[in-house]
Amino acid sequence: MPILKAAIIGGGHIADQNHIPALKALPERVELVAICSRDIQKARALADKHHIPLAYNNAAEMFDSDSKPDLIINCTANNLHYPFTVQALENNCHVLCEKPPAMNAAQAVEMADLAQKKGKVLAYNFQLRQTPEYSLLKRSLESGRLGEIYHIKANFLRRRGIPGWGNFTNKSIQGGGALMDLGVHVLDLALGLLDYGEPDRIIANTYDFIGKAGGKGLMGSWDAEKFEVEDACFAHLSFPNNASITLSTSFALNTKIQKNVNLEVFGTKAGAVLNPFALYSEMEGELVDMEFPHLEETDIQFKNTVAFLDFCEGKRSNICDAKQGAILQKIVEAIYKSAEK
Amino acid sequence: MPILKAAIIGGGHIADQNHIPALKALPERVELVAICSRDIQKARALADKHHIPLAYNNAAEMFDSDSKPDLIINCTANNLHYPFTVQALENNCHVLCEKPPAMNAAQAVEMADLAQKKGKVLAYNFQLRQTPEYSLLKRSLESGRLGEIYHIKANFLRRRGIPGWGNFTNKSIQGGGALMDLGVHVLDLALGLLDYGEPDRIIANTYDFIGKAGGKGLMGSWDAEKFEVEDACFAHLSFPNNASITLSTSFALNTKIQKNVNLEVFGTKAGAVLNPFALYSEMEGELVDMEFPHLEETDIQFKNTVAFLDFCEGKRSNICDAKQGAILQKIVEAIYKSAEK
Amino acid sequence: MPILKAAIIGGGHIADQNHIPALKALPERVELVAICSRDIQKARALADKHHIPLAYNNAAEMFDSDSKPDLIINCTANNLHYPFTVQALENNCHVLCEKPPAMNAAQAVEMADLAQKKGKVLAYNFQLRQTPEYSLLKRSLESGRLGEIYHIKANFLRRRGIPGWGNFTNKSIQGGGALMDLGVHVLDLALGLLDYGEPDRIIANTYDFIGKAGGKGLMGSWDAEKFEVEDACFAHLSFPNNASITLSTSFALNTKIQKNVNLEVFGTKAGAVLNPFALYSEMEGELVDMEFPHLEETDIQFKNTVAFLDFCEGKRSNICDAKQGAILQKIVEAIYKSAEK
Amino acid sequence: MPILKAAIIGGGHIADQNHIPALKALPERVELVAICSRDIQKARALADKHHIPLAYNNAAEMFDSDSKPDLIINCTANNLHYPFTVQALENNCHVLCEKPPAMNAAQAVEMADLAQKKGKVLAYNFQLRQTPEYSLLKRSLESGRLGEIYHIKANFLRRRGIPGWGNFTNKSIQGGGALMDLGVHVLDLALGLLDYGEPDRIIANTYDFIGKAGGKGLMGSWDAEKFEVEDACFAHLSFPNNASITLSTSFALNTKIQKNVNLEVFGTKAGAVLNPFALYSEMEGELVDMEFPHLEETDIQFKNTVAFLDFCEGKRSNICDAKQGAILQKIVEAIYKSAEK
Amino acid sequence: MPILKAAIIGGGHIADQNHIPALKALPERVELVAICSRDIQKARALADKHHIPLAYNNAAEMFDSDSKPDLIINCTANNLHYPFTVQALENNCHVLCEKPPAMNAAQAVEMADLAQKKGKVLAYNFQLRQTPEYSLLKRSLESGRLGEIYHIKANFLRRRGIPGWGNFTNKSIQGGGALMDLGVHVLDLALGLLDYGEPDRIIANTYDFIGKAGGKGLMGSWDAEKFEVEDACFAHLSFPNNASITLSTSFALNTKIQKNVNLEVFGTKAGAVLNPFALYSEMEGELVDMEFPHLEETDIQFKNTVAFLDFCEGKRSNICDAKQGAILQKIVEAIYKSAEK
Amino acid sequence: MPILKAAIIGGGHIADQNHIPALKALPERVELVAICSRDIQKARALADKHHIPLAYNNAAEMFDSDSKPDLIINCTANNLHYPFTVQALENNCHVLCEKPPAMNAAQAVEMADLAQKKGKVLAYNFQLRQTPEYSLLKRSLESGRLGEIYHIKANFLRRRGIPGWGNFTNKSIQGGGALMDLGVHVLDLALGLLDYGEPDRIIANTYDFIGKAGGKGLMGSWDAEKFEVEDACFAHLSFPNNASITLSTSFALNTKIQKNVNLEVFGTKAGAVLNPFALYSEMEGELVDMEFPHLEETDIQFKNTVAFLDFCEGKRSNICDAKQGAILQKIVEAIYKSAEK
Repeated sequence: MPILKAAIIGGGHIADQNHIPALKALPERVELVAICSRDIQKARALADKHHIPLAYNNAAEMFDSDSKPDLIINCTANNLHYPFTVQALENNCHVLCEKPPAMNAAQAVEMADLAQKKGKVLAYNFQLRQTPEYSLLKRSLESGRLGEIYHIKANFLRRRGIPGWGNFTNKSIQGGGALMDLGVHVLDLALGLLDYGEPDRIIANTYDFIGKAGGKGLMGSWDAEKFEVEDACFAHLSFPNNASITLSTSFALNTKIQKNVNLEVFGTKAGAVLNPFALYSEMEGELVDMEFPHLEETDIQFKNTVAFLDFCEGKRSNICDAKQGAILQKIVEAIYKSAEK
Repeated sequence: MPILKAAIIGGGHIADQNHIPALKALPERVELVAICSRDIQKARALADKHHIPLAYNNAAEMFDSDSKPDLIINCTANNLHYPFTVQALENNCHVLCEKPPAMNAAQAVEMADLAQKKGKVLAYNFQLRQTPEYSLLKRSLESGRLGEIYHIKANFLRRRGIPGWGNFTNKSIQGGGALMDLGVHVLDLALGLLDYGEPDRIIANTYDFIGKAGGKGLMGSWDAEKFEVEDACFAHLSFPNNASITLSTSFALNTKIQKNVNLEVFGTKAGAVLNPFALYSEMEGELVDMEFPHLEETDIQFKNTVAFLDFCEGKRSNICDAKQGAILQKIVEAIYKSAEK
Repeated sequence: MPILKAAIIGGGHIADQNHIPALKALPERVELVAICSRDIQKARALADKHHIPLAYNNAAEMFDSDSKPDLIINCTANNLHYPFTVQALENNCHVLCEKPPAMNAAQAVEMADLAQKKGKVLAYNFQLRQTPEYSLLKRSLESGRLGEIYHIKANFLRRRGIPGWGNFTNKSIQGGGALMDLGVHVLDLALGLLDYGEPDRIIANTYDFIGKAGGKGLMGSWDAEKFEVEDACFAHLSFPNNASITLSTSFALNTKIQKNVNLEVFGTKAGAVLNPFALYSEMEGELVDMEFPHLEETDIQFKNTVAFLDFCEGKRSNICDAKQGAILQKIVEAIYKSAEK
Repeated sequence: MPILKAAIIGGGHIADQNHIPALKALPERVELVAICSRDIQKARALADKHHIPLAYNNAAEMFDSDSKPDLIINCTANNLHYPFTVQALENNCHVLCEKPPAMNAAQAVEMADLAQKKGKVLAYNFQLRQTPEYSLLKRSLESGRLGEIYHIKANFLRRRGIPGWGNFTNKSIQGGGALMDLGVHVLDLALGLLDYGEPDRIIANTYDFIGKAGGKGLMGSWDAEKFEVEDACFAHLSFPNNASITLSTSFALNTKIQKNVNLEVFGTKAGAVLNPFALYSEMEGELVDMEFPHLEETDIQFKNTVAFLDFCEGKRSNICDAKQGAILQKIVEAIYKSAEK
Repeated sequence: MPILKAAIIGGGHIADQNHIPALKALPERVELVAICSRDIQKARALADKHHIPLAYNNAAEMFDSDSKPDLIINCTANNLHYPFTVQALENNCHVLCEKPPAMNAAQAVEMADLAQKKGKVLAYNFQLRQTPEYSLLKRSLESGRLGEIYHIKANFLRRRGIPGWGNFTNKSIQGGGALMDLGVHVLDLALGLLDYGEPDRIIANTYDFIGKAGGKGLMGSWDAEKFEVEDACFAHLSFPNNASITLSTSFALNTKIQKNVNLEVFGTKAGAVLNPFALYSEMEGELVDMEFPHLEETDIQFKNTVAFLDFCEGKRSNICDAKQGAILQKIVEAIYKSAEK
Repeated sequence: MPILKAAIIGGGHIADQNHIPALKALPERVELVAICSRDIQKARALADKHHIPLAYNNAAEMFDSDSKPDLIINCTANNLHYPFTVQALENNCHVLCEKPPAMNAAQAVEMADLAQKKGKVLAYNFQLRQTPEYSLLKRSLESGRLGEIYHIKANFLRRRGIPGWGNFTNKSIQGGGALMDLGVHVLDLALGLLDYGEPDRIIANTYDFIGKAGGKGLMGSWDAEKFEVEDACFAHLSFPNNASITLSTSFALNTKIQKNVNLEVFGTKAGAVLNPFALYSEMEGELVDMEFPHLEETDIQFKNTVAFLDFCEGKRSNICDAKQGAILQKIVEAIYKSAEK
C-alpha cells in the first residue's frame, strides 16, 4: 500500500498526547504532513515539537496545498466535528473524527451520507473498543460462550469529575454534558455487543443538581454559575429483539467510587464484567467464576489508529464507522428528548 | 386499648416462622385465637405447636364463630390474597396481607376501596421497611441530610435462586416471577423514599432464558419444563417531578453475587447505599464517606407486626397501607405491560 | 432389592460418629442388626444409643447367629483389618473396611484374592473420594477439560497433629505413622486420577525427629518416649506412562499451616487445585483462573456408604475396591522400603 | 591488593545489565580492560557505552594482548561455558562463569580439575545466594535455630514463562530446558543448605507437553515447532544422611502463580520459607511464626561479584566454587538420566 | 488435701455464670455448701439451679451454721467488698473477692492487714491474668526474652459501653466509673509485669462529658441524668526504677474500636502486644515480628479459681493477693486524687 | 507588596531540598539573594545549583552587605538556632527558624522577646501544620463538629530510626533526642488544637536502652558508644481547663510499625484520627465512622513558607509564631526535667 498523507485538525491535548504519537508510530503506513488549528501559535508549537512539516490556521488553505492530505484526524471541539468533517470529506479525505460524532442526529446522518456519496471512510475515535478486556468480551461472545446477550448495564460514572478546564460545561460547544462526553463511550461498547441495532423504546432522565450547586471538585474547580449541561443521565433502551441496556453516566454523583467505567453483560450462557474482566457461568454442572489475571496492557489509541488505517485500506476493522456513529447520535438525541418530557 | 383477637389464614412456612411468633410475642396487645388453612391437618398441627385455640379449614366458619377475630393475617398464596382479604374486610376485620398485594392492579384497587368503605385497616407485610438500615435511611432523608432524592437504583438479584419448592414458577398462582416475589420488596422501599408517588413513564423488559433452560440451582432444583414466569426483570420508572428509579430483579442471572438486595440512593446533598449502610457526601469542603458499623440486628417481622397493630389503633406507623399497595400493584402491572411490547 | 443386614465390628469413635449414622440414614437399603467389639460394654452402649438389636464381643458368635449379617463394616484398629475382614469374607459377607487396607501388601493382596474367590465385595472407606471437590475434579478430567494429567502433588500435612489419644504412635498396631493414617487418603485420590496404575519407580524418605523430640501438640499431647512411627514422609512415584506423583505427609512438621490436605494436579490442558477447587487453563487465547464458589457441603461418609451399597448391588460406584486397596498397600510398602535404604 | 584486570566474554544482555555495572562499581578492586564477543559490533557498542578500552571478537587475541586480563567473566551461551572457561584457565585467568556450569557433568568436572591444576579460581554466578533472604536463612541455620535440616522443597516455577527470545528452547545450545535455566538456581540454594553433599539416590520426570503444544506466552511467544527441551521437571533427591530435596521447576505449567521461586526448608527445630522469609518454630512452649518485614533490598549481582573477587584474593566467600559446580552438574545429569527411564 | 467448703456471697450474674460453674467443676477440691444474697429469692433460685444445699439472706447466719464454710467467694457490689470480706475473715474464712478490691485504699489496706492477722488467704478475682496471652507474656518476661520492661501502655477502652443495667454509673455503690470497673483489670496486668512495685509519681485526668450528655449506647441505654462517675480516665505512672505506665480506660469515648483491651509492653530486648499476642525484637541481626497463631482458648474463671485454691493450700499461684490488691487500690485512689487537681 | 529579599543561613539538606525550592517557587513575593554556611564550599555549591547571587561563610558580612536581606531562613543545627536568630533580629530581619526553637526555654523566651522588641516576625518551621489532614482537623474543630477536645494522644514513633548521619545523637548539638527532633512536631500539632495553652502539670520518663545497646538500624547505623540522648520519651501533660495530652515519641522502640506519626483526638462530640483522617461520632442517633478518601497531597514546605510570608506581611497565618515556640520550648524543658526525677 502507498503511504497515506495525514493531517490533524485541532491543536489540543488529545492531538498532542494521543493522535500525533499514534500516527508517528506508524511511519510505514502514514505520514503526518500538516496540523491545523484556529490558533496558529498552537499549530506551530505542535508542528515543531513533533516534526510535522506544515502548520495552518485555515483548513481550506491546507486542502488546497500541494501536500493535500489523504486523511484527516478531526480532534476539534464537539461543535466543530460536523463542519470540519464535511469539509474534509468534500475534499476527498478519509476522516477519523473524535467522539461524539456530532452535536445532533441530523449532522451525524448527513456526515454518514456524505461519506458514502464521496466513497470515503468516516470513522469515530471510540478507542475503548481496543482494550484487551473489550476484545476478550467480543471473542467470548463470538465463540458462543456467552450465549445470547439480553441485558447490559453500561456505566461511566464520576463522583466529582466535572473538568475545571476546557468547555465541558458549555452546552453550545459540547452539545451536552456527561452523556456527550462520557456516556457515549460505554454506549458504543454496549451497542457493539448487540450488532449496533437501533432501540425501539427509550426512556431517560437527566439532572444538574450538583453541577449547578457547586462544591468540591476532583478534576479542578468548575464554575457552578456557568454550568449548562447535565451532570448525570440515566436511561433504559429496549431493542426490537427484546434486548435492553441500562445506561448510567455522570460528571458528578454522590457515590463511593471516584470513577467507574464498566459493563455488566448478561447472556443466556454466561455473564461478563468488563473491568476487571470476569465471566460467570456454569461448568461441569457447577457455577463457575472465571478471572483472567494476565491480560496485557495495550496502547488503545495506537490500536484504534491502526484500525482506522485498516479500514481506509478496505480491511476488516473494529473501528466505529459512520453508520454506527449516526445510530449512536440518534440514540443520544432520543435520550435527551426523553429526558425533557 | 383492648386486646385484639387475631386469626391467621394460610398454614405455610411464613405463618409458622414469622407471623405466629410475632403475634405470640405481643400478648398485651393481641390474642391469636384461630388459624385457618385449606388443609385442616396443617391448621391443627400449627394450632397445637403454637397453642392456638381454634383451627379451621373454612374461613366463613371462622368468621361466624363466637371467637370472631378483629384482625386477620392473610398469608395465603398470591392468588388468594384478594379473595380472603375481601372476605375478611367484609367481615369487618383489619387485615395484614402478605406481599404482593394482589394478582393485578384492579384487585388491589378494589381491596383498598373496600377497606376504606368498611373503615378497616388493610396493610401489606413489606417487612424490609423495618431493617435498621432502611430506618436510618429514612431518618437521613427526613433530617435533610440527603437533600432531595432524584435517582434510585433498586436491586433484588439472585444468581441461581429459583426456589425448588412451592409454586414460585407457576404463573396462575404467583401472578409473575422475580418481580412479584422479590422485586416488589425493593420497589416498595424505593417508593417509600419518594412519597409513594406514581410514575408517569415506565419502560421494562422481562426474560426467562435461564428459567426455561434449566441448570444448577442454589435453592433446590426447579423444573425448567414448567417454568412460566420471568426469571429477570429490568425497568426504569420516571416520576412527574423528574425523579427516577432503575429496578433490577432476578430469580436467575449470570452474575457474581449469589444474592444482592440493595438500594443506591442519589440525593442532591448526599448519596446512600442501604447494605451495608453508608452515606457519601461533602463535609468541611471535602468528600466524606460515612459508615455506621454498630447498627443492631432487628426482628423485622416483629417490628412490622407492631407497626400494623399501631396502625389498627390509629397511631402513626410506617406500615405499607392499602393505598400504597394499590399504587405498587399498578406499577407492577405497568412493568409487565411494558415488557410485553 | 432386598434390604441387606449389616453389622459393625469395632466400637470406637468412627463407628459411633460415622458408620452407624450413615447406615441408619438408609433404612430402605440396609438394616443394622448387630455391633461387635472386644469390649462388650462398648458394644452394648453403642447398641443402646443407636437402637441396634444385638451386641457381641465375639465375631464368630455373630456370624453363627440367626441374624447373620450380609455385610460387615470393619472399623477396628489397623492390625485387625486383615483378620476380621478375612473372617467376614469367609462367612460370605461383603465388607467395607476402614483405611488403610492392611498392615502390609501381602495381607491386602490376600484379602483381595479371597474376596474374588468368595464372590463378595470388599471395599475400603476412603471417604474423601466423596467430597464435591474431588467429584468435580473427576468430572473435569472425564470431560477432557484437564487434558492428560502428568504430575500430581498430593499433600496431607499437619504442623503438630500427632494425636494424643489412641494408638497412632504405636507401630505394631498402626503399621506406620503419617503415611498409614493420613497419606493414604491423598495417595488414593491421586491414584484415582491416574486409573490406579502401579508406579514402576518409587523413592521415599521418612523422618521422626519431632515425634521423638516431643513438644507442643495441637491434638493433645503425645508421649515422645513411645513414638515408634514416622512423623513425616516424602515420596516420588513415577509411572510407566511417565506420569508422576509427589507425596508429602506429616503428623508434625515445622510449617505454617496447621492442616493442609490438598492435591495440585497438572494436566496438558489445565491444572487443578482441590481445596478450594480451582482450574488454571487457557480460554479465548488468554490464561484463565476458574473458581467454583458455590459447591455444596456433603456428608461424605453417607455418600461413601451409599457407594458401597451400590457396589454390593452390582452397580457402578466410585468406592475403593479390593484391587485398588491392594495396589495402594503395595505402594505404601514400597515407600517404606525405599525409606529404609 | 593490586587492582585486577578483568575482561568479559559474551556480549549479551547479562553482560550489559549485570556484570559490567558490577565491575564498574568496584574501581578500587578491578579494572575492566576488554570485552570479547563473536559479534564485533556488539563488543564495540558495549565498549563504547561502558567506556571499556578494548573490544575483541577473538578471545585468543585478547589473551595474547598486552592488556592480558587477570580474570574473565564468561557470560556466553551455555554451550560455550566449557570452551571459553578452559581457554581462560589455560591462559591463567580466574573465571566467573555464568550458570549452569556446563552442558554435562564431564565438562564441569574437567573445568574444576583444570582450575585446581592451574591454581586459579573458577566460580559460577549463582547470584541468588546473595539475597538478604538466603543470607538470613544461612545465618539461621548456622546459629542452630533451624536444628538439622532434613527436607527441602525447592521450586522455580513459571506458569507461561518460555522466553520468546534467545535460544532457551534449543537443546544443542542450552543443554536442557527449565532445569538448566531455572531449576539450577534453587537446586544450588538447597545444596548450599546441605553442605553441598552428593545425593545417593535420584528419581525424576520431565515433560514438554505445553512447550510442544504452544499457546499463550507471558514472556513473548515461542515457537512450539522448535521446542526441544523440557518445560517441566520434578525430581526427588535423597542424601546419604537421609536428608532429601524435592525439586520442581517449569517454563510452563498450568498453575496459578505466574512465577514462584522459593525454598521451603524443614529442620528439626524450625522450618523456614525463603520468600517472603519466615520461620516456623516453638517458643516458650507455643508454636511461633516469625516474620522479618524490614529486610533491605540488595544488588545481588554486585554482591556476587564482590564474593568472586574476595575468593580470587583468597578470602572466605559464599561464591559457588568449581567443585560445587561440578557436583551440581552431576546432579543435573543424573536427573535427566532418571527422566529418560 | 481435705475438700474445702465454699460459700458464695452475692447473687448476681457473675455468681451464676462464673464462680458457681468454676467451683462445681472442681468437686475433688471444693464443695459449694451455701449461697447468700440480700434477696433470698435470688439465693434460692441459684441454689436450686446449681444444686447448692443452703441459701441465706444473712451472712452472719451462714457463718454460724453447722456448714460453716472454709472459704468465701465475695461477688457483691463494690461497696460491699469491704464489709463482707472483713466479716468472712473474722469468721476465719479464706476469701476470693471480686475486683476492685474496695472503695478506697484504706479499706484495702485494712483488709490485707486483717487477712495477715487472721492467717487467712485474701485474693482478688482479676481473672484476665489467666488468659493464654498473659501467661505467654509472663513466660517471655521470665525467660529474659523481653529484657527489662521500661514502658507499658495499658488500655481498656469502650466506645459506647456504659452498661444500661446494674449500678455502674452510681458513685456511692461503685466507687468510680471506668477506672474502677475496667481500668483496674489492665492496671493489674501491667503491675504484674513490674513486680507490683508502687509508683512514686502519678498524674491523671478524668472526664464525664459523654456520660453526662447521653446518646447512643452499645450496652443498653444509660441515664445521663444519673451519671455520677468518670466515663474516661488517662493516667501516667512513674516508678522508682524509672519504668512507666500509660493507662487509658473508658466507658465511652469517640474512638473507632468498640472494645479495646490490650497491653503494649516495651522491653530492652523485645516489645510485646497482648491481643493478639506478638513479639517485636531482633534476631540474627534483623528485626523480627513473632506471632503465635495457635494459642488455645481457656476458661479463665476456672483457672483463676484453681489459682485461688492452690493459694489457699499454700501452693505457688499467680492469683492477685491481698497485698497486691492494696497496692492497686492505693494507685487507683492516687489517680482519682490527681484528677481532682 | 514589595518583593522581600531573603537569605538562607545553613547549607544542609533541608536548605537544598525544602527551603530554597519553596522560596524559588514564589518569585512574585520573595527574592533569594544570599546563602550563608560555615563551609563556604557548601554555600557556593548551593548558590550555583539554585542560582542564588551571593554566598557567604560569615553572617555578619552578609548583614552588612548592600544586598542586606529582609528575612532570614535559619536552618542551622539546633544549637545555632539561638545565636543566628538573635543576630538576624538584631539586624532587623524577619526570621523563619527551623524546629525546635532552641536548646532550652530561656533561649526561646529571649528570642521571642527580642522579636517583639524589634517589631520583627519570628516563626518556626513546623511544616506538619500544613498537611491537608491537619487542616481538615482544624476546620472540624472550628466548625464545632468535634465539640470540646479533652484528650489527645500524640505519637511520633520510630521502631529503629536513629539516623546514622548528622548529629542526631549528640546532646550538645541537638539539645536532646527523639523529643527534640520528632516529638516537638506532634506536640506542636496537639498544642495547636488546645489554643496553645500552657500545661500546669507535667510528668515524663525518658529512656536510652536501645540507643546505648546498638543493633539493627533502619536509617543507617548509629554509634552506640556515642549515643547521648533519649531514644524514647513518654509524657502526660495536664492543662488548667482539665484537657490532657499523652505524648509518645521514639527514635527506637520495640514496636511493630516502622514509623507512626499520628494524633488521636477525643472531643465531646466527635473523635478524630489524623492519619488517615477519620472522624468518630454520632449521627441520626447511630455511631458513625467518617472517612475522607479524596484528600489531595500538598507541598507542605511550600505552604509553610507562604504562611511565613503572609505573617511577615501582617496577614493572618497558621505559622508557629515566636510566642508559641517559647511555650513549646518551655514544655520540652519541663518534660526533660520531669524525666530526670
